[in-house]
Amino acid sequence: MAVVEVPEATISRLPIYFRVLADLSDRREASVSSERISEFAGVNAATVRKDFSYLGSYGTRGVGYEVAVLLSQIGTRLGMARSWPVVIAGAGNLGQALANYRGFSERGFPVLALIEVDESKVGTTVHGVRVRAASDLTEIVAENEGCIGVVATPASVAQEVVDRFVAAGIRSIMNFAPAVLTVPEGVHMRQVDLAVEMQVLSFHGQSRDPGHSRP
Amino acid sequence: MAVVEVPEATISRLPIYFRVLADLSDRREASVSSERISEFAGVNAATVRKDFSYLGSYGTRGVGYEVAVLLSQIGTRLGMARSWPVVIAGAGNLGQALANYRGFSERGFPVLALIEVDESKVGTTVHGVRVRAASDLTEIVAENEGCIGVVATPASVAQEVVDRFVAAGIRSIMNFAPAVLTVPEGVHMRQVDLAVEMQVLSFHGQSRDPGHSRP
Repeated sequence: MAVVEVPEATISRLPIYFRVLADLSDRREASVSSERISEFAGVNAATVRKDFSYLGSYGTRGVGYEVAVLLSQIGTRLGMARSWPVVIAGAGNLGQALANYRGFSERGFPVLALIEVDESKVGTTVHGVRVRAASDLTEIVAENEGCIGVVATPASVAQEVVDRFVAAGIRSIMNFAPAVLTVPEGVHMRQVDLAVEMQVLSFHGQSRDPGHSRP
Repeated sequence: MAVVEVPEATISRLPIYFRVLADLSDRREASVSSERISEFAGVNAATVRKDFSYLGSYGTRGVGYEVAVLLSQIGTRLGMARSWPVVIAGAGNLGQALANYRGFSERGFPVLALIEVDESKVGTTVHGVRVRAASDLTEIVAENEGCIGVVATPASVAQEVVDRFVAAGIRSIMNFAPAVLTVPEGVHMRQVDLAVEMQVLSFHGQSRDPGHSRP
């Protein structure tokens, strides 16, 4: 199948469009303009149209896009026709919080296992998720196609964890450790940086009250 | 002071530019082209130039932008000349993980307190952060200008928490609960949705191996 290369920035917006379209579909709206999507998604309308064109969707002048068709197209591209099992490395507070994060299982990302080097935790269950030894990783990945690996360890061991993920056959990684990590070509890694969200908030705080500075 | 309205999408990219520029500064680079920033930030060069123009930075043809000037401009807009105290509602796994998230304190977002309704936890200390009662919130916010409130509670009580934050005077909120919440005008809220990151990864998984579907 010939696949058009979709820019990374467009890919990052697809989940947002998906959520907007799912809401419209729930409200039984049949069609929607790029302007309306623009408003809900916080992306300008020209970008919305360009993004959809990568999926082969061009809309109809004066009518817009068919909600059901677009929802299904985006859902397919996001891999939502199947579930993607998740393995979390690190059973500390963050790993446990993620194992309990309802947003994952609800949207097709069931957490299969927490991987932990601390042997006293191995064999226990956290929010219904089994804690397993690092030596079990290869077996878990082999048995569950398309595993996504989540790094929830301290930054100091994060690269080692990523290397183990890759060696076990994982090709999609989400990193929460505040560390710059490298992966070989063909492996996708997303860096989750919560301080970025904080900085967006402090931008607004600063705009409201530009007079203050650190004492 | 007259302030140009900066689009929300631009604001979201400022922390990324800031990180790229800080790296360049560490490597003692004096100037940088929009193309080079584009490459590091994963944003196209025309957008980079447009974004910087909102800050009043236009660069010089053939030279580009001065790293130190741009870094200082963006840092100022992001409110990085001061620190922004953080109050986390919910001392469960997520709240505890966030209290321990080094990325916050390192970038000027010290966590002041965890707010918890479970009285057995009030008065304890988690990763050096005191757990305090909900009734202390107003006092904490009054004593610490520019507080950012973080919602790390179950979704079922998230709106109530946000309302309490607003009543206490908080005007910047980061919500981790998978719930659609509303805030009055003048209050900024960021919704952190970790499933969106997962969907970007499953997009790549699906592109690599489009044949599979849910059994």
